Amino acid sequence: MNDKSRFVQKITPKSTDFSKWYVEIIRKAELADYAPMKGMMVIRPYGYAVWEHIKNHLDKKIKETGHKNAYFPLFIPESFLQKETEHLEGFSPEVAWVTHGGEDELEERLAVRPTSEAIIGHMYSKWINSYRDLPVLINQWANIVRWEKVTRPFLRTAEFLWQEGHTAHETSQEAEEETQKMLSVYKEFIENELAISLISGLKSEREKFAGASATYCVEALMSDKKALQMGTSHFLGQHFSKVFDVKFEDRNQELQYVWQTSWGVTTRMVGALVMVHGDDSGLCFPPRVAPVQVIIVPISVGDWKKTVLPHAEKVKKKLENKGFRVELDDREQFTPGWKFSEWEMKGVPLRLEIGPRDIENNNVVLVRRDNRKKQVVSQDQMIEKGHEILDDIQKSMLNASLKFREDNTHEVNHYSEFQAIMKSKMGFVKTLWCGNPDCEAHIKEDTKATIRVIASEKEKGSCVYCDKDAHLVVYFARAY
Amino acid sequence: MNDKSRFVQKITPKSTDFSKWYVEIIRKAELADYAPMKGMMVIRPYGYAVWEHIKNHLDKKIKETGHKNAYFPLFIPESFLQKETEHLEGFSPEVAWVTHGGEDELEERLAVRPTSEAIIGHMYSKWINSYRDLPVLINQWANIVRWEKVTRPFLRTAEFLWQEGHTAHETSQEAEEETQKMLSVYKEFIENELAISLISGLKSEREKFAGASATYCVEALMSDKKALQMGTSHFLGQHFSKVFDVKFEDRNQELQYVWQTSWGVTTRMVGALVMVHGDDSGLCFPPRVAPVQVIIVPISVGDWKKTVLPHAEKVKKKLENKGFRVELDDREQFTPGWKFSEWEMKGVPLRLEIGPRDIENNNVVLVRRDNRKKQVVSQDQMIEKGHEILDDIQKSMLNASLKFREDNTHEVNHYSEFQAIMKSKMGFVKTLWCGNPDCEAHIKEDTKATIRVIASEKEKGSCVYCDKDAHLVVYFARAY
Repeated sequence: MNDKSRFVQKITPKSTDFSKWYVEIIRKAELADYAPMKGMMVIRPYGYAVWEHIKNHLDKKIKETGHKNAYFPLFIPESFLQKETEHLEGFSPEVAWVTHGGEDELEERLAVRPTSEAIIGHMYSKWINSYRDLPVLINQWANIVRWEKVTRPFLRTAEFLWQEGHTAHETSQEAEEETQKMLSVYKEFIENELAISLISGLKSEREKFAGASATYCVEALMSDKKALQMGTSHFLGQHFSKVFDVKFEDRNQELQYVWQTSWGVTTRMVGALVMVHGDDSGLCFPPRVAPVQVIIVPISVGDWKKTVLPHAEKVKKKLENKGFRVELDDREQFTPGWKFSEWEMKGVPLRLEIGPRDIENNNVVLVRRDNRKKQVVSQDQMIEKGHEILDDIQKSMLNASLKFREDNTHEVNHYSEFQAIMKSKMGFVKTLWCGNPDCEAHIKEDTKATIRVIASEKEKGSCVYCDKDAHLVVYFARAY
Repeated sequence: MNDKSRFVQKITPKSTDFSKWYVEIIRKAELADYAPMKGMMVIRPYGYAVWEHIKNHLDKKIKETGHKNAYFPLFIPESFLQKETEHLEGFSPEVAWVTHGGEDELEERLAVRPTSEAIIGHMYSKWINSYRDLPVLINQWANIVRWEKVTRPFLRTAEFLWQEGHTAHETSQEAEEETQKMLSVYKEFIENELAISLISGLKSEREKFAGASATYCVEALMSDKKALQMGTSHFLGQHFSKVFDVKFEDRNQELQYVWQTSWGVTTRMVGALVMVHGDDSGLCFPPRVAPVQVIIVPISVGDWKKTVLPHAEKVKKKLENKGFRVELDDREQFTPGWKFSEWEMKGVPLRLEIGPRDIENNNVVLVRRDNRKKQVVSQDQMIEKGHEILDDIQKSMLNASLKFREDNTHEVNHYSEFQAIMKSKMGFVKTLWCGNPDCEAHIKEDTKATIRVIASEKEKGSCVYCDKDAHLVVYFARAY
């Protein structure tokens, strides 16, 4: 294969076939590739860099809110999973089982962790004795395996990466507060760093985590108008502390079970970045998590390697020294135009062009990925302008996501209207629900839409499905 | 259990029973705990913080040398492992096998990765086409499973954490250079950050990585005078590129197999820190990787919560602002003396005491963990002195480790001497070897010592075992 013959091939337009576009762009931009095992993927360096930025930003927030990282085992004995019935029922269809170690068959099968409540519950029972040991605020960054039948890179794969926080508290109220606190950490993080606007609230009984008393979550609208769950925060009550016997001596010398929470976000967030911000030309990363924030493309005319390139290298150094994540594309075998398309596809927020005339005039050309606006700025102003533009891109992207969500949220009172929306416009339907799981089930059957969140606000009115008294404000959508 | 009754219990002295001391200190200092599954451990927050510092320091070096992080799947199909015979034979006795996904038996067993050459080889064959794609310089931070029969926390566990670099190059020479480069990165890192003095060199055929052309490694001497392998860097030649068909079109448009390397270090390094620097009072962390660098213990006399504590808090803020990792032990239920022992056991490099008299004189008391030297310094000098002392501790600890290694390295010409040393003094035996694996095997049988490294220096003389001509300078030791 001759490299010179390579060029950025046309990607299926997003509007023509969203699913195809999604998979193609992930592979062409080298975010990820399929592994040879069904349902598994490889996160390539360009995609992993996004995850690293997510991880670094979020890890800081998790630590600032008093949590410490630890590491629990990958394997969980089958008997541990069996202790909490709901938990077992929820996860056992998707557990990968280890049955042999070396040549020997194991006495008890080991689950490759689908989540770690069970093993952590067991360890907490050994570590917690007194109210003085509380709260326990631990987080872990780990890989998780869930044997999913239908998979899609980043969104649903047999293995994924995540963080899972697991906390234990003296009182129910304290645990409830922790659940809410981490939900806000996620919300702030996703809006500020990923530039993705969210709704948040409670899951219905049907949608909640297997083993939780209550699941809160943040949900976003992808650009195909389907919803994606972006993070969850569970109030576990005493479900796990009772089955794993996590007791403490309280301030009155009485034994009590601890109150627990767990919360997590996953590599799925990388998929959300693709689906929220991407367009027909490819990816578009918000600057705060972009692997490369500025791509420098030297204009290759005449003896450019001797005339333009040294200037481009100086510009790169200057930007690097000021903390920009910057790369210089000095490949000989590609034209500037080819490079423009390639880096557009890879979603770099800002392109910096520099050619002989720019050098003469002490200028550089800056082109934004989000709105393609071009401006010529002097090299003396380059740093200041660069920061300004990246900040503006970050803000504009969040605003665009907010506007998109608002434009595609439909307040609905009648079921016929609900059905019509799910047939054509999609997006979020905001409506009232009586709380009856049967209504929820019927709606899902008719429209494929599920309750994404129950909002914290309350209203008086009637259920969109059964017309009985209702006060729960809910958001429905078709979801990934 | 009443917390007031807890106190730092006596740990088995290191000199009495090293193994027992090792395990006790790891559990009492809360570095790690046993998991309920045989051979697995939980890395607790205090231990994980050490690993995080190691990871952050090393990740920076790995990136500075041009590598990028990625993530490859946890599972490897059995047929992939079978492709490289040596590799399979080396690893199959210790592979954990996944045989079921959910309710279904898998068509092919999946190995939980014991190392990732096989899956990465396969992916590289898809990604690499031209010399322009080379070198590929990828690293991954991941969990690894090896079903070991005899385990010990951090040193040998069924699951551990590591980084594994996997690179592909145009030429053999370039791959050789990479192998050496990463060996030096490890050496510098371990000496500078972990304050552990090393020897480095080549492994013998018997000790090399299953599937490598050559394995280089760094080895350290633990304080029980047994050696520990601290990191390895493998020149893989074309072993894996040939079986996974990783070819590229070279500069003459001819197809060639790539040349590969792989290299790794693990959570074992935390165990090395315990075994090299610990003493009868417990852990002793080098400041650069210590979870806590300065522990503030307020002297609790009289109304200390109102008089001493506010000052201690101010001191803490000041130190934190200057980048020290600092904690303040304000627990009421323990005496200062109890706290001194506890933080000594936890290996905090510097203790800062502050009492009413210190406040009066605008002083603090600083006590080093390594040599227990105490000095009174004025609060104005505290920052400067603090940095100075931590730097000095770091240097002193490396010097102590270097001296210990030198004092316990015995140059030997006669086999009787060799045997005598392995019966009493232990440590490294530096001697000459003819290169015959039989001599190596006999020596191991007689003394339990193995060749830790073949040094790069050459000498003329005779083999310590068979007396035939020899030019290989080798270091023997009993090893973990």
